[in-house]
Amino acid sequence: MIDLNSDLGEGFGRWELGDDDALLSLVTSANVACGFHAGDPSVMRRVCERAAAQGVAIGAQVGYRDLAGFGRRFIDVDPRELVNDVVYQIAALDGFARLAGTRVAYVKPHGALYNAIVHHEPQAVAVAEAVRRYDANLPVLGLPGSSWLRHAAGAGLVCFQEAFADRAYTPEGTLVPRREPGSVLHDPEQIVARCLRLVTEGRLTAVDGTDIDISADSLCVHGDTAGAVDIARRLSEELTRAGHAPRPFVAR
Amino acid sequence: MIDLNSDLGEGFGRWELGDDDALLSLVTSANVACGFHAGDPSVMRRVCERAAAQGVAIGAQVGYRDLAGFGRRFIDVDPRELVNDVVYQIAALDGFARLAGTRVAYVKPHGALYNAIVHHEPQAVAVAEAVRRYDANLPVLGLPGSSWLRHAAGAGLVCFQEAFADRAYTPEGTLVPRREPGSVLHDPEQIVARCLRLVTEGRLTAVDGTDIDISADSLCVHGDTAGAVDIARRLSEELTRAGHAPRPFVAR
Amino acid sequence: MIDLNSDLGEGFGRWELGDDDALLSLVTSANVACGFHAGDPSVMRRVCERAAAQGVAIGAQVGYRDLAGFGRRFIDVDPRELVNDVVYQIAALDGFARLAGTRVAYVKPHGALYNAIVHHEPQAVAVAEAVRRYDANLPVLGLPGSSWLRHAAGAGLVCFQEAFADRAYTPEGTLVPRREPGSVLHDPEQIVARCLRLVTEGRLTAVDGTDIDISADSLCVHGDTAGAVDIARRLSEELTRAGHAPRPFVAR
Amino acid sequence: MIDLNSDLGEGFGRWELGDDDALLSLVTSANVACGFHAGDPSVMRRVCERAAAQGVAIGAQVGYRDLAGFGRRFIDVDPRELVNDVVYQIAALDGFARLAGTRVAYVKPHGALYNAIVHHEPQAVAVAEAVRRYDANLPVLGLPGSSWLRHAAGAGLVCFQEAFADRAYTPEGTLVPRREPGSVLHDPEQIVARCLRLVTEGRLTAVDGTDIDISADSLCVHGDTAGAVDIARRLSEELTRAGHAPRPFVAR
Repeated sequence: MIDLNSDLGEGFGRWELGDDDALLSLVTSANVACGFHAGDPSVMRRVCERAAAQGVAIGAQVGYRDLAGFGRRFIDVDPRELVNDVVYQIAALDGFARLAGTRVAYVKPHGALYNAIVHHEPQAVAVAEAVRRYDANLPVLGLPGSSWLRHAAGAGLVCFQEAFADRAYTPEGTLVPRREPGSVLHDPEQIVARCLRLVTEGRLTAVDGTDIDISADSLCVHGDTAGAVDIARRLSEELTRAGHAPRPFVAR
Repeated sequence: MIDLNSDLGEGFGRWELGDDDALLSLVTSANVACGFHAGDPSVMRRVCERAAAQGVAIGAQVGYRDLAGFGRRFIDVDPRELVNDVVYQIAALDGFARLAGTRVAYVKPHGALYNAIVHHEPQAVAVAEAVRRYDANLPVLGLPGSSWLRHAAGAGLVCFQEAFADRAYTPEGTLVPRREPGSVLHDPEQIVARCLRLVTEGRLTAVDGTDIDISADSLCVHGDTAGAVDIARRLSEELTRAGHAPRPFVAR
Repeated sequence: MIDLNSDLGEGFGRWELGDDDALLSLVTSANVACGFHAGDPSVMRRVCERAAAQGVAIGAQVGYRDLAGFGRRFIDVDPRELVNDVVYQIAALDGFARLAGTRVAYVKPHGALYNAIVHHEPQAVAVAEAVRRYDANLPVLGLPGSSWLRHAAGAGLVCFQEAFADRAYTPEGTLVPRREPGSVLHDPEQIVARCLRLVTEGRLTAVDGTDIDISADSLCVHGDTAGAVDIARRLSEELTRAGHAPRPFVAR
Repeated sequence: MIDLNSDLGEGFGRWELGDDDALLSLVTSANVACGFHAGDPSVMRRVCERAAAQGVAIGAQVGYRDLAGFGRRFIDVDPRELVNDVVYQIAALDGFARLAGTRVAYVKPHGALYNAIVHHEPQAVAVAEAVRRYDANLPVLGLPGSSWLRHAAGAGLVCFQEAFADRAYTPEGTLVPRREPGSVLHDPEQIVARCLRLVTEGRLTAVDGTDIDISADSLCVHGDTAGAVDIARRLSEELTRAGHAPRPFVAR
């Protein structure tokens, strides 16, 4: 059983980004931006309504307050303030999820915050604390082995793990940093083949050619790159053909 | 039975405004800014926690998205987008109210939005629609005779009326526009005396000297003017002495 | 002699809008967004450098402070503050124009501000005052008959007039409002033919079929609509073929 | 010969901060916020006009784009973008300086950017590059021994050094970190005595009691703390009495 998640609702005002409608018909979990680094109330509402109508789970894509940087720049936010910034974003999105007859089903931090809390302990603690305070039954999604998932588990939250469809892995099972050659995969055939193997065997080939064990509840497919929709479609079709039709890792 | 309401939580980041703590010990309803024209997540959380601890009702002080203008400039927002902007703000504040063990108890628009929806029909409809969609049981607070209260009532919302402690009234019972001389009262004695009479007799003296009937569930005292705290204290004390100790118009 | 102007540099951070590079090879004047409703410092610098390299005049596309609304919503800004908002934007853009070895060559307000100062006297006065205070030799571009051009002329500024390539005109020579059917033209053949006639004869056919006299120093072609680049290319080619190769209305 | 500098123009819209008018009559150089972390166009214009009228030098207080954090949080901005963010801010402020009949006379980074470029090489290079590209004759102000001053000097910029009136120093001549006890001085007598000695002898007592040599072109007095104005007044009076009446380190 596997889920496909993608970042959605990342437009802002006049600016659009990615093909929300196409992806909503392919993925099973939508990480919806909450207005701090992307997304505005009207985009949020629209994506929530479409997601709800199609049975796509709504996740809170929380991030730093940084529209100009799209949440992709680390900000040394005081953890006490970060707790509140995250609560604010989840609560705002939950308002639109309720309007659509559902609820925010999980939390997945975005961009530089996602990367920071792989290792930044105080910020990882802060995000986990925010989720716990908002709703202790709200699951989280993250990178296996991250401080984020460790502190989320420590806070009593249900944790789900994701793998990246288009990223190369080290022999240790971590992501090859983006700045290194070969870190991002572009060939749809290769991406689909890797994901199929990951889902069916729990293994994939690391960047050095060795096989590694990877456990994932969800596969992250990027929505704002060229060919993103095609890859998501191929992936969805092939997983379904293989008897692993994607479905949300949370049912709410 | 009367309520005292005041605008609170109007700081932003490094910038403070008004004396939230002092006013929270005097008023019975706090209109808390929600981040679009003032207020940030940490201010919102702090005010919600203190309000909840002291039995002060939390109202959503929703406004235009305009930090630079403090929500005091009319913006010709598309009503369809305004609905979503208002839902976003209420939902975000409600997150902090829940953290504090309570809920947003009412909605009171702020500044230029407050003034616009006295007569701007599409925006009045939009704000009422936002409240109804977010929670059809959520009461609203506004100016008697406004489009806002009319459309809120039409949407099935419970409506409460406010009077202004420090504003002069026309013989028709509307506010004397701010640009006219004598529109704002400054003498604490006069303000307290007027309010006492309004609460006990349902009447006050208009700007032309005639007596008019005014019905109010709540008295608005401003928080960011010099002497605001003193006036609120005097008002609270004198109302209590007269057997009309202020209490929230909503109990939630 | 005619100029082609287009709105450019309207991306913001991660978000792109329009095809700046393609248009910079076609238009002769670039209205560059200055960061209040669109544009960020890196976009501004890039567009200024490319414009300078290609001999395209740089105009300050000043607007309301409203990223969420892309400057397309009227804001009732205090005219005394609007003066300063406009000075700030011109000065910031001029910094990048200087870096590129040139200067801001003219000012053209954007969106809702453009529309407002067709008739809103205090805001029209404010924008004219801002230009005059920043640089009394800085020309302005606007709609014939607008308060904006009238007050700019009154302030001693050199005024240039524009016509819209893709808009229908009333028999009185004003634009047919966008909400009316037929207000926006989409057929490239028709657009090019109208513009050619306007440039060569100083006339075009109004929406009721009558001929009207129109005088224009510049033709505005929109950059963010489908087919915009094609229309600009056709227009540039046909004008050149007819002996009216576009060039900037200002040489600086 | 010594200069007194202070952060000014740090209000934003409705929010005020510090007593700009009082400080403008006491300091000789004003670090004026440029709108990214504080300051708005109307505040900038007002402070520039008053500074110019009183012979106070105008410095560009450039910072990270972070109103919510008041520029006090490190942001991992791409240095190529930081160059442009800094050019934008200097240019915008320079517009108001010109309106006031003067020019921006120096650049002093603010808050977290100030602290970052003490050691963050790529950001230090970026800020120096921004100043050099905007105006290679524009002096800079900073902390002795910082990467910032080193790279500014390397870029050919004229560099001035500042000391902090209310901060304790280590025996090595660096600032005692704020988180350590005794890092910030509060006693006006002590502050004035230290500064007098620093100006007359070029020495002050470090936190361990030893004497150290400190060379400073300017003394930084903080404007937003309680008693700031009193300390600035005492300092100005005592320096004048001792024959070292403060004057701008740059004359422009």
